[in-house]
Amino acid sequence: MHILVTGAGGFLGRLLIDTLLAQTDATITALDVVPLSFASERVTAFVGDLSDAAWLAATLAQVAPVEQAYHLAAVVSGSAEADFDLGYRANLEGTRNILEALRRQSASGGPVARLVFTSSVAVFGGNLPEVVTDGTVAAPQGSYGVQKLMSEYLIGDYTRKGYVDGRAVRLPTVSVRPGKPNAALSSFASGIIREPLQGKVSELPVTRDTAVWILSPDSAVAALRHTLTLDHEVFHGGVYGPAVNLPGLCVSVSQMLDSLLEVGGPEALALVKDVPDPRVTKLVATWPTKFAPERALALGYRADNDFTQIVRTFAARL
Amino acid sequence: MHILVTGAGGFLGRLLIDTLLAQTDATITALDVVPLSFASERVTAFVGDLSDAAWLAATLAQVAPVEQAYHLAAVVSGSAEADFDLGYRANLEGTRNILEALRRQSASGGPVARLVFTSSVAVFGGNLPEVVTDGTVAAPQGSYGVQKLMSEYLIGDYTRKGYVDGRAVRLPTVSVRPGKPNAALSSFASGIIREPLQGKVSELPVTRDTAVWILSPDSAVAALRHTLTLDHEVFHGGVYGPAVNLPGLCVSVSQMLDSLLEVGGPEALALVKDVPDPRVTKLVATWPTKFAPERALALGYRADNDFTQIVRTFAARL
Repeated sequence: MHILVTGAGGFLGRLLIDTLLAQTDATITALDVVPLSFASERVTAFVGDLSDAAWLAATLAQVAPVEQAYHLAAVVSGSAEADFDLGYRANLEGTRNILEALRRQSASGGPVARLVFTSSVAVFGGNLPEVVTDGTVAAPQGSYGVQKLMSEYLIGDYTRKGYVDGRAVRLPTVSVRPGKPNAALSSFASGIIREPLQGKVSELPVTRDTAVWILSPDSAVAALRHTLTLDHEVFHGGVYGPAVNLPGLCVSVSQMLDSLLEVGGPEALALVKDVPDPRVTKLVATWPTKFAPERALALGYRADNDFTQIVRTFAARL
Repeated sequence: MHILVTGAGGFLGRLLIDTLLAQTDATITALDVVPLSFASERVTAFVGDLSDAAWLAATLAQVAPVEQAYHLAAVVSGSAEADFDLGYRANLEGTRNILEALRRQSASGGPVARLVFTSSVAVFGGNLPEVVTDGTVAAPQGSYGVQKLMSEYLIGDYTRKGYVDGRAVRLPTVSVRPGKPNAALSSFASGIIREPLQGKVSELPVTRDTAVWILSPDSAVAALRHTLTLDHEVFHGGVYGPAVNLPGLCVSVSQMLDSLLEVGGPEALALVKDVPDPRVTKLVATWPTKFAPERALALGYRADNDFTQIVRTFAARL
């Protein structure tokens, strides 16, 4: 099995690759815009930009045919909102270039790659019901969500045509992310746990009653891998696009801070500083916080049970 | 007032331009891939391909700033399905190029153009409810519908950013179209009236119980013009994308043939030949036939009352 991972240098990409190395004997082609090194010889890393179709074609020409692809590469929500052109180049054209490369592979007699694409709950916005269902119309109110949604439908069309077998899933906010704060508008949802547990101050840009739809890193990786185990007919059910809303946990910032207190004690909690940011607050407020993800549950996807347990798992790895 | 019309050589573009000339004193820039001539000096026509961004920029540099734009240009559904690359180039990249050109205009101190985009009921497909509402999720099962839907969201994002003021409306199948049969999968919905009324045979590729959601050409032009009269806040209501489902008439092929009989007599009816085409039948069957277009009705859009009246109007212009 030869697997392609884009955005391989992101924390999810790294966790995915570590898991694939541990649990499969696959060889992996890892793409990212920054140089990467992996301990295993089963991983070959390439540095480049997915929006550069020629680079992508030349790179894939050097490796084995792609049987499975995890397309994780993206410019995060804050960056896509700040730089309109960058967002479309990375998040839409990058996706199209991956699809085109895999289409050429199957057109020239190679395998029809099975691909999973990480869409996002940021495709939802506007006037939302209290609980988002599989029948809720997506109306993203940020460029990142628009780019993710457009990519979902594009993948659906390439799949209907038989060029690839693409599956798009809408990830909840993944928390607790390791590493550093990033430009994702949801960065606080990891930061208010991660930084205080390491003795650092974390600024909270939203109010404490703000709720977030959360999935742990381990559950996110499990969901992505589960996606590629499903038979074509089971996943698509004869209808191509839009994406599956993944299950998650609806957690308020207050509840997250309760978990922080429980795991890290009052000295950790004291490191969270309320620094309201209207720009972040406004966009995060357009994201839904509670779902009834019936299609995903029927397909066998599972959420985490408890945010405190997620925090404990994170703390144990520090 | 200076108005841009793309797809100006299509029947809807021509009818729109004739109406604008008769009812306004606007000057019009008319774009199409084929050479056009208009009787009025108020229309300047240019020949070129919207997917050629450089041509588009050079063309718009020659004319007055665009205050209103009717973006009608598209490769029709049958062609988009037959030629995947052409469909995306024309229907997605063409739209993006128009948006980029208008963005550059506003960025350089020109007006924020008010734009109407003709999306389509072909954005719907898959497992549809009997009556499609404004809350029905779009799941196009054809490339044309995917390209229209992606364009809707793209226009919404450019509008949210303030680059243009774009409004997307989903047109029902426009019937009775004058002219010749085309590669639209819905071409029969005009052909079975138009050809027999002119003594010609028309082939019916679908069964007679097939229903179609129909709008007359005059009502389609009225709807497009109405779209640009609405205030920004009224049309968008603070939420950008997706498009408005326009009102129409749900008419079965049998009912259409009853109207043909009434207007054209039995000799006209006898010219309709059933020639089932599984490819057309399969895709047309994915399109919805009945809507509850509440948002559109609240915005003041109106459907036709009666298909026989549409046929009479068409016949009177022959």
